[in-house]
Amino acid sequence: MRIEKLAKMMRERNFDGALVSPGSNLYYLTGIRIHEAGERPTVLAVNSEGDFHLLVPSIYENTIKDFPVTFWRDGENPYAKLSAMMRELGIDDGKVLVENTMRADWLIEILRNSKVEPHPLGKVMKELRMRKDNGEIKLMEKAAKVADEVFEEILSWDLVGMTERELALKIELAIRERSDGISFEPIVASGENGANPHHEPGERKLRRGDMVILDYGAKWKGYCSDITRTIALGKPGEKLIEIYEVVREAQERAFQVVREGVKAKEIDGTARRTIEEAGYGRYFTHRTGHGLGLDVHEEPYIGPDGETILENGMTFTIEPGIYVPNLGGVRIEDDVLVEGKGRRLTKSSRELISL
Amino acid sequence: MRIEKLAKMMRERNFDGALVSPGSNLYYLTGIRIHEAGERPTVLAVNSEGDFHLLVPSIYENTIKDFPVTFWRDGENPYAKLSAMMRELGIDDGKVLVENTMRADWLIEILRNSKVEPHPLGKVMKELRMRKDNGEIKLMEKAAKVADEVFEEILSWDLVGMTERELALKIELAIRERSDGISFEPIVASGENGANPHHEPGERKLRRGDMVILDYGAKWKGYCSDITRTIALGKPGEKLIEIYEVVREAQERAFQVVREGVKAKEIDGTARRTIEEAGYGRYFTHRTGHGLGLDVHEEPYIGPDGETILENGMTFTIEPGIYVPNLGGVRIEDDVLVEGKGRRLTKSSRELISL
Repeated sequence: MRIEKLAKMMRERNFDGALVSPGSNLYYLTGIRIHEAGERPTVLAVNSEGDFHLLVPSIYENTIKDFPVTFWRDGENPYAKLSAMMRELGIDDGKVLVENTMRADWLIEILRNSKVEPHPLGKVMKELRMRKDNGEIKLMEKAAKVADEVFEEILSWDLVGMTERELALKIELAIRERSDGISFEPIVASGENGANPHHEPGERKLRRGDMVILDYGAKWKGYCSDITRTIALGKPGEKLIEIYEVVREAQERAFQVVREGVKAKEIDGTARRTIEEAGYGRYFTHRTGHGLGLDVHEEPYIGPDGETILENGMTFTIEPGIYVPNLGGVRIEDDVLVEGKGRRLTKSSRELISL
Repeated sequence: MRIEKLAKMMRERNFDGALVSPGSNLYYLTGIRIHEAGERPTVLAVNSEGDFHLLVPSIYENTIKDFPVTFWRDGENPYAKLSAMMRELGIDDGKVLVENTMRADWLIEILRNSKVEPHPLGKVMKELRMRKDNGEIKLMEKAAKVADEVFEEILSWDLVGMTERELALKIELAIRERSDGISFEPIVASGENGANPHHEPGERKLRRGDMVILDYGAKWKGYCSDITRTIALGKPGEKLIEIYEVVREAQERAFQVVREGVKAKEIDGTARRTIEEAGYGRYFTHRTGHGLGLDVHEEPYIGPDGETILENGMTFTIEPGIYVPNLGGVRIEDDVLVEGKGRRLTKSSRELISL
């Protein structure tokens, strides 16, 4: 069970307990989704023996079952209940891991009512969550499949004349139709806007001769996909077509390097070298990829300083790009799973498609 | 200036400083919007003299001007810079207000590097923000106008046969077309689903004879509107029509009570009494309203325990409802400003409209 894995890591690293507030870590550890906690204290407490207890507002009384839980009602003091829970678990002092995103007002009350020495929980959880189990991989495959299906659908649309914003919205709706929603706001960057890797879709209309970067993803039961394809409308200039081939080659070579035991930075290095050798090194301005799971950005990061040694079950993106100011850009991104070698979860064609 | 107002309140209440992280408080105090801080420390520090300084990631280097600011780059230690800022302002010890929603990992580092005694900032900011100035009121009027326009548009749609989800999405798109976006996910609760005041739009199709609760809002430059109208499709049962009239009357009477110097709970009491006298008391299961501004729920809350004395410039909702299990529900909600008496910002008709 995942909570026991956390307890084991706490024992190894001499932490006495952990306090987890709502978010993807709580969902990962318990399978319980808490959406509307807002400012109402909601905390999972775990000690290093693997004992645990959850404090939640009473609005969840009918939805949380078969779990050690204490409910609190509006008007009650949740912090008194939390203190009692922490005492019971023996974590009212000592070194206690605290969810990085826990609200400061909760932590202030916890510190007032206990003698814990707080430490950020993030690092430990990142290590746990980096290696996906089979159940998680199934969900990621489904999220990736949605991304592929949406790409197929995009190719059937009449894109010329549409604004970037309109297209981004249509993509969002196509994702929402097939899944639990978007994993982030879709990016549509057309023509010279493609030169900005973080471009926000705007009022520019797509036109013949454009390269258009499409970057989007779906969520399935909490798990994210994240795909980028760059398509051509009509016939873009030769320079952009050359750039496309460089990026495609860099992405493919980086993918071929993926296997158990390799360092993340070797993947980044392969993509980067390919682009440098083609003379575009200074136009590849970001990391080659990032881990993917319950969060759309998580460990392992695939960059020049990525020391993580790849293990089976890790999932991440490979997304090299070239961005030339006043000309445009190309990025190609797949979600990749390590199982011995790499396996692509997103399978849409990476050949240049011209509509 | 708003920061000076905060400093004045700190002096009155013996606080030495405040640390504000991104969110509506930071926007309110500085007019600076920070969207993508994520886990990167971003803090406005203010002392009780009204001196202030902002720490932000270097991605904002081009967008923040004419403001005392320190940028930090990836690879640098932001907490060392924050400590220096706090020392400079003389708030590296003493009683310091901390943004309620600040991430725990930031607060943990701040406590490690200073001797501050942290207190939640929320209460002070709530009091400041409760009273809107003229600039804020203009923005709220615009957000309310969008809500009215969208209601007008909804009335032109062919609703019968649409699912709640489809209608919620159409409402969202109509809001997004006219504003900076939704202030919360639209609620569509039709037929017996109307009996749940927190119903999430689902697959139920709207049909003749339904009462349909529509609850949604827009954002305009950060400021929120929040409107509810309940409409009839064809001719609902007499019971529901009777309930509609009770809610309409309760909402109107509560509105008439609004004026400077009245306590929030008197408004709630008026709505509640009206509903109780009609025999539906046990079906009115929530507060009569909530403050509205940069957040869609803020002070003053209009409930049975609302001790806030209304002042000019306060804005809040009045939204009584009746929810009868297995039958359905009715809610009518307007946004109201105190200026001597009450003035409705949302102006859509409150008569029962049957489509």
